[in-house]
Amino acid sequence: MIKSVELSKAYRLLNHGPTVLISSRHAGKHNVMAAAWNMPLDFEPPKIAIVVDKNTYTRELIEASGSFAINVPCRAQAEVVVKVGSSNGRELLKKEANNKFLAFDLPTFAASKIEAPLLESCIAWLECKVIAEPHIQDTYDLFLAEVVAAQADSRVFSDGHWHFEEHDELRTIHHIAGGSFMAIGEAFKI
Amino acid sequence: MIKSVELSKAYRLLNHGPTVLISSRHAGKHNVMAAAWNMPLDFEPPKIAIVVDKNTYTRELIEASGSFAINVPCRAQAEVVVKVGSSNGRELLKKEANNKFLAFDLPTFAASKIEAPLLESCIAWLECKVIAEPHIQDTYDLFLAEVVAAQADSRVFSDGHWHFEEHDELRTIHHIAGGSFMAIGEAFKI
Repeated sequence: MIKSVELSKAYRLLNHGPTVLISSRHAGKHNVMAAAWNMPLDFEPPKIAIVVDKNTYTRELIEASGSFAINVPCRAQAEVVVKVGSSNGRELLKKEANNKFLAFDLPTFAASKIEAPLLESCIAWLECKVIAEPHIQDTYDLFLAEVVAAQADSRVFSDGHWHFEEHDELRTIHHIAGGSFMAIGEAFKI
Repeated sequence: MIKSVELSKAYRLLNHGPTVLISSRHAGKHNVMAAAWNMPLDFEPPKIAIVVDKNTYTRELIEASGSFAINVPCRAQAEVVVKVGSSNGRELLKKEANNKFLAFDLPTFAASKIEAPLLESCIAWLECKVIAEPHIQDTYDLFLAEVVAAQADSRVFSDGHWHFEEHDELRTIHHIAGGSFMAIGEAFKI
């Protein structure tokens, strides 16, 4: 069901503003965090912008590896998104369940062009390489990246368009605050 | 129905990724464009990031005035969003209907802290002052701004939360490509 998305259409995976999970890996350490603050930045080559707070363990792994994956989760995973978003990767490292993938039982599969693991049961994946812009990284926690590979679950994204009509449980989720979400709703064309 | 939104909660107007309209004014000239590529950047003082292409007339007005407004349109306005998004403010200037507000009959009201006009019938408004970052403006068409005032239609946003249940026509709209949209859907809490 997972099909590759042509790079010129990768922006459409994020264009409607879903909350995403950022996965990262460096030197055998890996982590995943939730991020509502993401957006496309360019069409081709596709670029994206995302906010990653200085205090996160993910930030450390992204800065060390120069890459990360954006995983687009779905309604069936909302609980996981909240767990991932409200836990600290650095704290987990000190415990026996030493990362979020183990702690929350999140199976992953390999990315094609970067080290970061991709989360199973998500509905789209964008593999990203950081475009170094130290000033805005330091000042605003803002990271720019080029999307080097993209995939999506063909049950809900094909031919460059989302189609959730028969899969309510696979709809993207859009966080507001404190565990309050909205699922994406009805499609229409003007 | 229009109530002011406290600045610490202004990010919640954009957190779920709606497509917005950017209005601007400088020296008696004004314009409005559609923009799906926007996101919150910080909580307090609230900051946002938005992509404004070099070729747009809006870009010229934003760079000259140092400010702009983000207007969050609703489903009832989807046709207007497409018209605004597919027309060119510079071309309209040459014609009798010399701006998009006149050409598309878009009534406006005054902002409180910036020059840009705010569009009636939208459901939220963020008044923004550009944070000058010439390198990323030039290289990526990326603008950062501080939100200096925010308002929302209290029928659908109050106490820091959206509530669209009784107002389908006021739901935010989320553009994918070429006139294909999705409205925001069901709310849920984890």
